[in-house]
Amino acid sequence: MENGRSALSDGVLIVGTGLLGTSLGLALRRAGIDVRLRDTKSETLAEAVRLGAGRPSEPGDAPAALGVVAVPPEAVAGVVADLLDAGDAEYATDVASVKAMPAEQVRARLGPAGRYVGSHPMAGREVSGPGGALPDLFEGRPWVVCPDEHTDQQAVTRALAVARLAGAAPVTMSVADHDAAVALVSHAPHLVSVLMAARLVDAPDHEIRLAGPGVSDVTRIAGGDPGLWTEILSANAAAVHDVLSDLRDDLDRTLAALASPEPARSALYQLMRSGVDGRGRLPGKHGEAHAEFVTVAVMVDDRPGQLARLFADVDAAGANVEDVRIDHSPGQPVGLVEIDVRPGTDADLRTALTERGWNVPR
Amino acid sequence: MENGRSALSDGVLIVGTGLLGTSLGLALRRAGIDVRLRDTKSETLAEAVRLGAGRPSEPGDAPAALGVVAVPPEAVAGVVADLLDAGDAEYATDVASVKAMPAEQVRARLGPAGRYVGSHPMAGREVSGPGGALPDLFEGRPWVVCPDEHTDQQAVTRALAVARLAGAAPVTMSVADHDAAVALVSHAPHLVSVLMAARLVDAPDHEIRLAGPGVSDVTRIAGGDPGLWTEILSANAAAVHDVLSDLRDDLDRTLAALASPEPARSALYQLMRSGVDGRGRLPGKHGEAHAEFVTVAVMVDDRPGQLARLFADVDAAGANVEDVRIDHSPGQPVGLVEIDVRPGTDADLRTALTERGWNVPR
Repeated sequence: MENGRSALSDGVLIVGTGLLGTSLGLALRRAGIDVRLRDTKSETLAEAVRLGAGRPSEPGDAPAALGVVAVPPEAVAGVVADLLDAGDAEYATDVASVKAMPAEQVRARLGPAGRYVGSHPMAGREVSGPGGALPDLFEGRPWVVCPDEHTDQQAVTRALAVARLAGAAPVTMSVADHDAAVALVSHAPHLVSVLMAARLVDAPDHEIRLAGPGVSDVTRIAGGDPGLWTEILSANAAAVHDVLSDLRDDLDRTLAALASPEPARSALYQLMRSGVDGRGRLPGKHGEAHAEFVTVAVMVDDRPGQLARLFADVDAAGANVEDVRIDHSPGQPVGLVEIDVRPGTDADLRTALTERGWNVPR
Repeated sequence: MENGRSALSDGVLIVGTGLLGTSLGLALRRAGIDVRLRDTKSETLAEAVRLGAGRPSEPGDAPAALGVVAVPPEAVAGVVADLLDAGDAEYATDVASVKAMPAEQVRARLGPAGRYVGSHPMAGREVSGPGGALPDLFEGRPWVVCPDEHTDQQAVTRALAVARLAGAAPVTMSVADHDAAVALVSHAPHLVSVLMAARLVDAPDHEIRLAGPGVSDVTRIAGGDPGLWTEILSANAAAVHDVLSDLRDDLDRTLAALASPEPARSALYQLMRSGVDGRGRLPGKHGEAHAEFVTVAVMVDDRPGQLARLFADVDAAGANVEDVRIDHSPGQPVGLVEIDVRPGTDADLRTALTERGWNVPR
């Protein structure tokens, strides 16, 4: 399959050289694409150039095959319209995490804008700026492209080519489907994590001291940047509201079940069952459901080199590690390392690790 | 400090040889304590004995210094009362994860029962039964002991001795404080995780396919045993209700903020800020707040031996690993390994790994 290099033979112009823009530049340069960079902050641009993400765009440049706008959601439409009006690029896309809002704003500026198509690579890191950029950031991640009935086929072709050359797995869906999907799998989980973490703010120390790995998992993403998340949630407010009102209905039923004189076990059981079923639908590292992996737990202590020795032995056993977790023992130099492997390979791994002297409980 | 061996010189009787009972037997045997075991299922008892958790209790045995009742919460009171009535043990405790319900039921049977004190080791695994038992299960974990004004000092002394000999960190608090604490740090997070996971049950495949590590973290514990969790939540219904009604108030404010014509950014920002603050209060491996660790991220691919080589290099760099996460790339053989270390040691680790050829983005 032609991977899209020819569709981009006139090069790509990336506007905004933060984490996403710079990562994309690095990936496209590696794929041999001519990449021009632009940023309103000259130091940010200079750092991206120094890292090898592309060359600075110049006034005399011929129009790029595609402009990729990697700026905050609320600034997307203005940049896209300027880019196309000025002839800096023949077509344009953006990489913001919401799609209805920029699409509407572009339409308000340009009318039905066939030369623009929104897109969203499902990739990111907790750091921002060009210094955190990775050429592999998009590797294997979904990259959603959202055409509508007015979109030129060339815009779609070029956006898909960029996604593919960056190593992502391109997928097309409507703007509405995209925004509903990210509300469900990203924005609502963030709010739920925050709602739980907020309960801890004023809790007495003796309660916090009993916290274990469960509450830590649930609240991990609540640590994300408050300003950025406020923007994201505001820009996708309606779709997030839909998911959370369904959740509130379940929460109200749960509160009623807990408040009834004899707690309503069947209602609680139904909810717990839905939790197990919903959890089972999530994909793992290779796209399978989590339920398809098996966990091998190994006791380790804090002596230097324990993890290195463990993974050397895991490797010698020929096991392919799908995921790793360390189950903490607050204040103590001992813990359980949980290694997820494919079913059918767990028994051999247990045997091999036990033979090498590891404590491997069932 | 005398660690409590003499307080238990007449031995410990463990009733219920599931995961907790058998793990405790293994830990106490290792500490040189005489351990007798009892279980209504003869195969379960036999397995615990075979694993080395103790010897079967016999009709002619002298009273044990302490009976430890490790049966489901709703069965605790009956077993405790029978044990003390029959003179099988001088004092008794239990290890159920709720404390008000068994204490009330013991009182209903025995009156103010000075010879019983409830306790709760904050330890567990996702497997059940004696086969999953670990002598180190309690190592470094909080073990809460809940005396009241009627409790004999000897009951407390002996329960604390068991906790200490099992390697746990004993702490005393009232029954009400305990139940409020576990509602906050364990039961409410479980329900929140379930409420989010339940949203995924009927979601279309194209939405699920966009799921990443965030929703996976939030919903991890939702996979727990529905029957067991129904019992736990029913037994601590009032305290869980308190936490969740506060959460519902925040949720209602959030829904209102999302539904207002121009989303109310300041309300959303306040909530996000509380999430960050609450998350920051959770202890890490050594009891510090998470915020006190720094993450070093390293790109790895799926080639055999990558994790072993990485941790060998981490070890050679002299770094002490506080936590590890693998950030998945569904369907692709590449990922980001995130290693948490103490602040001040991260720069050296980055340098050392970079020198050894690893891709270590900022």
